[in-house]
Order: sequence, then C-alpha cells, then structure tokens
Amino acid sequence: MIPPDTSFPISGVLFEPRRVIADSRGSVLHYLRADSPLLPRFGEVYASTVLAGQVKAWKRHQRVAQNLSVPLGRVRCVIFDARPESPTRGRLIERVLSRTEHGLLHLPPGLWYGFLGEAPGESVILNCVAEIHDPGESDRLPPDSPEIPYRWPAPATS
Amino acid sequence: MIPPDTSFPISGVLFEPRRVIADSRGSVLHYLRADSPLLPRFGEVYASTVLAGQVKAWKRHQRVAQNLSVPLGRVRCVIFDARPESPTRGRLIERVLSRTEHGLLHLPPGLWYGFLGEAPGESVILNCVAEIHDPGESDRLPPDSPEIPYRWPAPATS
Repeated sequence: MIPPDTSFPISGVLFEPRRVIADSRGSVLHYLRADSPLLPRFGEVYASTVLAGQVKAWKRHQRVAQNLSVPLGRVRCVIFDARPESPTRGRLIERVLSRTEHGLLHLPPGLWYGFLGEAPGESVILNCVAEIHDPGESDRLPPDSPEIPYRWPAPATS
Repeated sequence: MIPPDTSFPISGVLFEPRRVIADSRGSVLHYLRADSPLLPRFGEVYASTVLAGQVKAWKRHQRVAQNLSVPLGRVRCVIFDARPESPTRGRLIERVLSRTEHGLLHLPPGLWYGFLGEAPGESVILNCVAEIHDPGESDRLPPDSPEIPYRWPAPATS
C-alpha cells in the first residue's frame, strides 16, 4: 500500500498514489478496488475527456464524492471550498493529475471543481462514484463565474 | 438504452454500445453502472494502456469475466475460444475497440484474448471486474504460441 497524501489544504480532499506497472508495451494503472473506503459502494464508473486548452467548469455535487484519476494526458484540477460549515471555507487549490504522479483524487461532495486539459490532444479522466448518475444531484456555474476566485486561461480557438 | 450487439460468433461474448456525449471541450463516455448484469458485483476497476504497434497477449481468466472499453485510442482485441465445452470451440474473432463505435466488450472467463495498439501513441483500455485482482486466477501464453491460430504483426522497434 502506498500511503495517502494528507497534505491537502481542503478538508476531506485526499490524494492517494496508485501503482503504475510499465513495460515496453504499455502500462497497467491501478485505480479503485472494492476494499477502498473511498468508495462505500459501487454506483457507476465512466470516463470523460478534456481537449488541450479546454476548460470544463464549474461543477458541484450535493451528496456524491468524486474519485478522479487520469490514466492518459495531463489535467489541471481546480477545487474551491464554499461549504458553509467547512473549516477550510474559502480555500482554493490546483492539482495536476498525470502519469508523472499517478493516483486518485478524492473530492467529498459540496466542493466546486473544474478541469483544464494541459496535454496535447485529449486527456482522459476516470470517475467512479457510489451512485448511478443523477443530474439533479449536481449544480453548475460558468467558468468565469464571479462566485469563484479563479481565472481560467482563455480556451484555445480552433 | 442502446440494445446489445448479439451477433458475436463466440458464445457468451457480447458487445454493448455505450453513449458518447461530445462537445467542443471533450467527451463523456459511459461505461458501467451498478444495474448492469455484466457486473454482478464490484471488485476492481483499472486501466491498461497499449502503445502503437505493441501486442499484449495472450491471457485467459479462469473465473472472472472481463468488461473492456477503450475511451481513447484504437485497440484490436483478438479472442480465441478453446473452452472444452463451448459450442463455439475453436473459433477466433477480432474486434476493434475505439471511439468510432464506443461500447463495452464483455468476455466470459475461459477465453484467450490479446490486444494490439492500433492508434498513434498510447491507447487506453478500461476493465471492471467482479473480483479484486488475483494473479493465480489467470493463465498466460506468449504472443506467438502455436496453441492459438493467430499471427500478430511484428512489434514496432524503437
């Protein structure tokens, strides 16, 4: 077991390193197992992709934790804590997810988060959650919302 | 629901198309949910990658079904049925997994299978299985094994 990184300055956010087994043919990238406390039960696993220079933001889940991992590419993940009762309310962090430091980023519900594609082409983000997707369970804000103190780079024009 | 493709000539093998929701920023690619009969319980989800022109073969699982999906890249999957009791014993099929026809390829235990990376760079293969990985549960043969009537292309040299 690789120990979790507990240095995150937002309450409940955790980064757990995961094994990469690489050879000349490709890699095997561990992600989530049934014995992980980060996933109390299995609901759904899906992939999303973000193109180079593109932003997917902002989203907030009301009750479902996110378990993010990037098996290919490089994604900047920005997290903002606006939870009224949180000891880290008002804090914002950036974390890059890539093969360089492979692992799983756990976000408890209630946080705003968004992604920027930092690799050429398409980056892949895996997410495994404890419920089947329910669109009524999440909120959205536009990337340039004044409610969140973060400015994304202007998207690349095609 | 997209109906499953039941045209597979190997008994128990199934391809289920899955939704792709694409826009200018990237895509969302459905994969597996808790209500799928293809996954009786959650054991583990992981990613493997295969580089362009590289072969990962052959592997056979004794009791665990595989649920394969390729969110990025293009992978040729070759499957050989050597199960003694199978009505399709001796049959071999090739199936390409890519965004062009996104979905989930379900392989029951007992089949030999292998992969060839057909896209430039690295292709990603997701697998979600009903047990935590147990190396004693699978068998391997070299890519050029005479037991399987298939010749892979020679790997690209670097």
